[in-house]
Amino acid sequence: MDARLLIMGGAAGPALLARFVELAGAASARILVIATASEAPDAAEEFYVGAFTSLGAGSARALRLATRADANAPEVAGSLRAATGVFFTGGDQERITSVLGGTATDSLLQELVVDGTVVLGGTSAGAAMMSATMIVGGDQPGVTAASVRTGPGLEFLPGVLIDQHFAQRGRLNRLLSAVARYPHELGLGIDEDTAILTDGDRFEVLGSGAVTVVDAGAATDIQVPPAGPIALAGALVHVLPAGHTFHLTGRRPGIGEHSHEDREPAPPAGPERVSVPAGGGGPAPAGGTDRSGDV
Amino acid sequence: MDARLLIMGGAAGPALLARFVELAGAASARILVIATASEAPDAAEEFYVGAFTSLGAGSARALRLATRADANAPEVAGSLRAATGVFFTGGDQERITSVLGGTATDSLLQELVVDGTVVLGGTSAGAAMMSATMIVGGDQPGVTAASVRTGPGLEFLPGVLIDQHFAQRGRLNRLLSAVARYPHELGLGIDEDTAILTDGDRFEVLGSGAVTVVDAGAATDIQVPPAGPIALAGALVHVLPAGHTFHLTGRRPGIGEHSHEDREPAPPAGPERVSVPAGGGGPAPAGGTDRSGDV
Repeated sequence: MDARLLIMGGAAGPALLARFVELAGAASARILVIATASEAPDAAEEFYVGAFTSLGAGSARALRLATRADANAPEVAGSLRAATGVFFTGGDQERITSVLGGTATDSLLQELVVDGTVVLGGTSAGAAMMSATMIVGGDQPGVTAASVRTGPGLEFLPGVLIDQHFAQRGRLNRLLSAVARYPHELGLGIDEDTAILTDGDRFEVLGSGAVTVVDAGAATDIQVPPAGPIALAGALVHVLPAGHTFHLTGRRPGIGEHSHEDREPAPPAGPERVSVPAGGGGPAPAGGTDRSGDV
Repeated sequence: MDARLLIMGGAAGPALLARFVELAGAASARILVIATASEAPDAAEEFYVGAFTSLGAGSARALRLATRADANAPEVAGSLRAATGVFFTGGDQERITSVLGGTATDSLLQELVVDGTVVLGGTSAGAAMMSATMIVGGDQPGVTAASVRTGPGLEFLPGVLIDQHFAQRGRLNRLLSAVARYPHELGLGIDEDTAILTDGDRFEVLGSGAVTVVDAGAATDIQVPPAGPIALAGALVHVLPAGHTFHLTGRRPGIGEHSHEDREPAPPAGPERVSVPAGGGGPAPAGGTDRSGDV
């Protein structure tokens, strides 16, 4: 079996949490909640254990890993081996890597996830830590080296940089800044109440928002000065709502099982390329004003 | 002669304002400042007339156009015909279009700009109004139909959508929303203290920030539902600091006179593609923390 990862951009609603329960086995699910990222682990554990239980999980309980000693304790292995799903809450992603990184828990979890025994879920910080290169900060405007700080993540999903609370916190500039520095990594920006579900080399988008994929692989020019704006010419951006898929190594979006290229030829240029789903009222009407400032 | 447009993203510093004076003829420049967009035209006129004068313009004075009657008054023609540069301040771009649109001033200014007699400058709202389709509002998060509102601009630069205060106000999502609806228009997001200078079918980037070009022309899939996230697969993004150029109808970036494709073959994939200019200290070091929130 392949690793199944359900990676949520924060503020996940019941539909996404229910999907995690279902993936973990529904009435047969045995879910562990790890709130290591949180400054208030009691509340985080209570929230997610309660949510998973009320959504029909066979069992859900907290696994408290507050220190590296906890994460290396021999009795943790038994808990992990009995689990069908492991869920990481939000908080500070560097608390996850500093407490778990390289411990017996980390090693065993990698093994159980890779062989498909355990479905791994995470939200917010619990999403960020899943990538090999982890975004740990940076909220400056613009596309600059200083707009993003990164560190090593736990590498459950290689080849990507994961950002979260993406639309809500306006983080496209920092994801562009990150892929300009590391163009071999695909940037994945996951909105709140939105998730990716991996399936081998593909992922599917779930939830009410979108996943923004930033691909600097085809960029024709990248310059990252120590200060001032980055030059990044020719990056590809894909904004993908629920139902869309993405092939990670092929670096191509699709819908359902198919890539867009398989589905239909490219339509001609022009405004008629915009399709509005049947029953829709079309885009919001133009109008209103926007003070741009007097300078 | 070709139309010269100097289009600034707001908060323009002395270097950009001096460039406008130079383009208008320096000691021979006769500059008109039009503060129609501003709610406080006295202050805006005083600021720019003072700035252009102190930067060496032969003359600079305000042309007050507060009503459509002002913009249709016969005596305006004489002022415009005597000018070498016309500058639009910031404020509300819809005040510019509602007061000037279709008036004698509008018609004559189009003619004088097209034949190269007048250099046209504008900042903030004075930049937004130069495109054919003008962004008038929208500051919601995410890429959605409701994230941007548009209306007709004065069409000094066709084929583009211009946004301003771009990095500072985190507007990439609204520019993506706009080009998803109108993929034939190139989205140009101009940072503060940054400008584009047009030269026929090309523009050059000036100033301390960057210009972000969003090109949905090659998108393989666009869906704009009336509510919820837009799907936009395969859009190109170019982040271009000073010194970079862009060919508008060719839709390709370059440096100086050359497109990137002319300059060098595409380097191989991998992190070594990131170049740090000589003397630079490299990207900011990783480290620090970023609370992602507990949910």
